[in-house]
Amino acid sequence: MRNPWKTLSSRLIYQNPWFRVIEDQVIRPDGKPGIYGIVDLAPSVGVLALNERNEVALVGQWRYTRQRYCWELPVGASKSSDPGMLHAAQRELREETGLEASEWIEIGVLDSIVGATTERATLFLARGLVQRDDAQDAEEQISVRWVPLHEALSMVDRHEITECISVVTLLRGAAWLGGNGSPSSPRI
Amino acid sequence: MRNPWKTLSSRLIYQNPWFRVIEDQVIRPDGKPGIYGIVDLAPSVGVLALNERNEVALVGQWRYTRQRYCWELPVGASKSSDPGMLHAAQRELREETGLEASEWIEIGVLDSIVGATTERATLFLARGLVQRDDAQDAEEQISVRWVPLHEALSMVDRHEITECISVVTLLRGAAWLGGNGSPSSPRI
Repeated sequence: MRNPWKTLSSRLIYQNPWFRVIEDQVIRPDGKPGIYGIVDLAPSVGVLALNERNEVALVGQWRYTRQRYCWELPVGASKSSDPGMLHAAQRELREETGLEASEWIEIGVLDSIVGATTERATLFLARGLVQRDDAQDAEEQISVRWVPLHEALSMVDRHEITECISVVTLLRGAAWLGGNGSPSSPRI
Repeated sequence: MRNPWKTLSSRLIYQNPWFRVIEDQVIRPDGKPGIYGIVDLAPSVGVLALNERNEVALVGQWRYTRQRYCWELPVGASKSSDPGMLHAAQRELREETGLEASEWIEIGVLDSIVGATTERATLFLARGLVQRDDAQDAEEQISVRWVPLHEALSMVDRHEITECISVVTLLRGAAWLGGNGSPSSPRI
């Protein structure tokens, strides 16, 4: 399929340490001139950290954009210093929970707000957990809580966990674990 | 839980017909001054439209932000003229596929990119479909394709459907349909 859009010019509108806003002058698929605004974010990661009692590490924090306290999986943006998404996931898990994991399994990818952003997340299942230190994110106050996997899935059902990377990592992780060990066979 | 952030001031940086960018001056939870950039988007909807042969309506379009052709469910932002999310879902389904549905079931909510945006989606299952007209989105070229529900789920597994609202609407819709008819009992 050929790209039906034509980009005439591209202009940086705004940037902060977390995202850039770019506005393109375009010719749209219908042939008319227009603009396309893009929010450019670093790729992100989500981690389902599962201990030997089949409990999941949830992290809680006040989300400024929602003006409420939210329970999620360890989720966050990669940094330019991360050599790759696995490293970003390992760093994010360590920063938010103090955990390290011996086993890492990639269980999916996810594109968010595709009409306006470049956000892509890579989803991981982490097992073989060791507590190295306390949660240590300097900027935000983060709590860690362990809940059984089935209870985390019930929290999704009850809309107590609604953050999209967390939801998909939980659903796909549970399918991966409940199936035949292959991520291509979720039991749904 | 008390809000650990303090907002000192708020400034509109940019707006287009699809989102606004706001930058707040804040005192962070650690007591230090900083900024918080917010991308403010209209609430959105996702629709799992299922026909009597258990086939799902997929829509395909070139996604400018990804520079590739993407298959998704009917997904889109609400308009200020929509009286509510159900109406937005009905309008979006009609615009993208030409379908109307007699049965609408809300199957979840989803928050995307919670660190930087206000995006919240409401997810629907739509049944009792009637084809009213052709897909008619003026701005973008949209194709419609029917695939069996199990094949759509396999497309998620194979990372052929990665758009987050589509993924969660498919997974939760399948769980809803496969369970006892209650959205609180996904068969995972």
